[in-house]
Amino acid sequence: MQENVNLKKLMELLESRQFRLLKEKLSEMNEVDIAAFIEELDSERTVVVYRMLSKELASDVFACLPVETQEHIINSITDYELSAIVNDLFVDDAVDMLEELPANVVKRVLKNSTSDTRQLINQFLQYPENSAGSIMTAEYVGLKKAMTVKEAFSYIRRHGVDKETIYTCYVMDAKRTLEGVVTVKDLLMHPYEEMIENIMDTHVIKAITTDDQEEVAERFRKYGLLSLPVVDHEDRLVGIVTVDDVVDVMEQEATEDFEKMAAMIPSERPYLKTGVVTLAKNRLAWLLILMISSMITGGILAKYEAAFAAIPLLVTFIPMLTDTGGNAGSQSSTMIIRGMAVGEIKPSDILRVIWKELQVGLLVGMLLGLVNYLRLVILYPGQELLCLTVVLSLIATVIIAKTIGCILPIAAQIFHMDPAIMAAPLITTIVDAVSLVLYFQLACRLLQLNGG
Amino acid sequence: MQENVNLKKLMELLESRQFRLLKEKLSEMNEVDIAAFIEELDSERTVVVYRMLSKELASDVFACLPVETQEHIINSITDYELSAIVNDLFVDDAVDMLEELPANVVKRVLKNSTSDTRQLINQFLQYPENSAGSIMTAEYVGLKKAMTVKEAFSYIRRHGVDKETIYTCYVMDAKRTLEGVVTVKDLLMHPYEEMIENIMDTHVIKAITTDDQEEVAERFRKYGLLSLPVVDHEDRLVGIVTVDDVVDVMEQEATEDFEKMAAMIPSERPYLKTGVVTLAKNRLAWLLILMISSMITGGILAKYEAAFAAIPLLVTFIPMLTDTGGNAGSQSSTMIIRGMAVGEIKPSDILRVIWKELQVGLLVGMLLGLVNYLRLVILYPGQELLCLTVVLSLIATVIIAKTIGCILPIAAQIFHMDPAIMAAPLITTIVDAVSLVLYFQLACRLLQLNGG
Repeated sequence: MQENVNLKKLMELLESRQFRLLKEKLSEMNEVDIAAFIEELDSERTVVVYRMLSKELASDVFACLPVETQEHIINSITDYELSAIVNDLFVDDAVDMLEELPANVVKRVLKNSTSDTRQLINQFLQYPENSAGSIMTAEYVGLKKAMTVKEAFSYIRRHGVDKETIYTCYVMDAKRTLEGVVTVKDLLMHPYEEMIENIMDTHVIKAITTDDQEEVAERFRKYGLLSLPVVDHEDRLVGIVTVDDVVDVMEQEATEDFEKMAAMIPSERPYLKTGVVTLAKNRLAWLLILMISSMITGGILAKYEAAFAAIPLLVTFIPMLTDTGGNAGSQSSTMIIRGMAVGEIKPSDILRVIWKELQVGLLVGMLLGLVNYLRLVILYPGQELLCLTVVLSLIATVIIAKTIGCILPIAAQIFHMDPAIMAAPLITTIVDAVSLVLYFQLACRLLQLNGG
Repeated sequence: MQENVNLKKLMELLESRQFRLLKEKLSEMNEVDIAAFIEELDSERTVVVYRMLSKELASDVFACLPVETQEHIINSITDYELSAIVNDLFVDDAVDMLEELPANVVKRVLKNSTSDTRQLINQFLQYPENSAGSIMTAEYVGLKKAMTVKEAFSYIRRHGVDKETIYTCYVMDAKRTLEGVVTVKDLLMHPYEEMIENIMDTHVIKAITTDDQEEVAERFRKYGLLSLPVVDHEDRLVGIVTVDDVVDVMEQEATEDFEKMAAMIPSERPYLKTGVVTLAKNRLAWLLILMISSMITGGILAKYEAAFAAIPLLVTFIPMLTDTGGNAGSQSSTMIIRGMAVGEIKPSDILRVIWKELQVGLLVGMLLGLVNYLRLVILYPGQELLCLTVVLSLIATVIIAKTIGCILPIAAQIFHMDPAIMAAPLITTIVDAVSLVLYFQLACRLLQLNGG
């Protein structure tokens, strides 16, 4: 697209100090692309370029910048300029920024905002993290039942310019209780003299401030919404969530699930911007827990020392058994965790899921067992009992792995834990232990070895 | 929310044959909730309830139903009813349905659509799967430069009711070349006599029919869009993508990545609706490949039979080493694969990434090594060389795992393969082989055993 070409050209204009031309180019650009350009600049030039922006564009671009750059700009501009930005930002963007800025900068920002804005920001800062309240904004169009379509339009014309969306308007009574919604499409499809009361939809899909942002995202997806009203526990409208923020939430939630499912504590920031120590810290806890668990597996193995001292060949099948078991189990747990995350699988489906996984496990296990059997009878002719031990262990491992892999995430959900913990790493460790005990027990029985 | 309560009540009304009341209730409901209700019904009642819906609601609900139910309804209604539905559906919904229906049903559907609709559907059916063309729809508002705001509004009032979105309007010349966009917000904020030409934005963010749907989703996320125009290679407007479809694409793409990263072929349909044989097929291919790879690892191990025959204790550390290596490697590969999927990490970042992972690997490896060392000197006093073998192998394994884990996904991207293949399962198998060779080589050297 055009933005990549532009970046280079803009940089040239800046370096050759053709400021007037640069300013003109910037005024035609999208705020997202301007922010991407500013991110490439050193700290001095950041402020130079930022000051070239018109007042309206300045706060739009500001909202798109990473918090370090926002902090740098705040520290480089006058109180007057700061006040203009802060009062122009949408409350959700202001709150996102303030949550990450150091205390002294927060103080200066709040000092330079109007008392209305300050009050609103303080209220919004108090909603719990990842709640509907924490991602909503306060800039919406509120109408009254008794207005006509014509009055609604002239109200939107007067007040709509600062609103995050004008396309869905919210109808409230004097106590701000939400009575209905009306879209601009509805307004456009009805005559000017029609009353809002007659065209508004009273079956409002809404969220409560304390609802989890994942539920909010799910509701957007299910109903194909553009915005969603958020009410307090007395059903009074306090804000709206818009679809652009939900798109970010969805991406963020998926990333968190990927990280959790690979045994990491989810990181707050993108990979390239996270320091080595933080990355190490996020990864260490689970590695440690899993390492200690696999030491226990090692301890179990020690019980069978006599067995693999007698037949060292037994050891060479360990990677195949544990890897296959781990993979088979992770496949199931991944499908179930994801199915629950998108709302397809519910804890009440547990019996259906187990039955399905048992059948899949049997089918897959038998086929893998067959391949193994063919290989083993060719490689180790005459050692039928050894072949049988390996093949039976493999089939049992696959079936057990699939069953564990589907039960644990659902069980976690039932006990209000995060199912994403029950993913590949933990499943692999558990299946390792189970499959090795099974394997050596079988070996001891079938090959009549000591141990177990 | 209210929908769960309603389902039960509706079922009661249906069972007690209070059809008039049921019809009234349905008329007040959201199409998504009605579809959820119909999905719960047997095939006979499906048609009974469906026929209760008003004509406008009927096609909205129809678009929300799964394809089996759509097929059942199509087979149960008259040509006249069918024709009304088909011509009322948005092209993208019609195309989604037709792609999954059996040929004879497709024929009947096309026979009952107007020739305009038929032509449009045939054109849309030809766009490649997962392209911008395959997710776009044809129902948008097209304006002309020479219109005034007032004319634009009256055009929208006349033609807007059937459009998927009216909030972004597209300005085209006589050849349908896209000249600009204007939002209803822009229209509302300008006086009635202003010309569209003067208020339209000519820097249009757009997609080409052949662009991948992932790129399209990325553009929506980056710019916070509500809709995106899709043009052909001659820059003529052919359709638009709306944000509700993009939300589905994002969820679908994330699910596919989860499945691929757990060594499965992505499934076309949700888990509970996928048959056992299909599930087994999707999982078998990779399990087989990985099983054969881990047989090779086993083969390598066989070379060191003498070593673990001499010191069987060596075997008990295998699970700890391979599990920790696998986990450490999957952590890195997961972060990199996800980072590339959301566009944060690019192949050109490869050196930065490797340097970061090397440091993280060293830090994490040293700490895990320390914990292990303390445990080993307590459990096996006097066996310093054994302790050293295990600890050094562990540290080296973690560092190597992190390096492999970050290089392989980026390499896959560079060679235009899917990075998601280079996830936990494959990384674990590779790291297993490397760490075991390392471990036994070290053991043979340090403990002066035969083999290697």
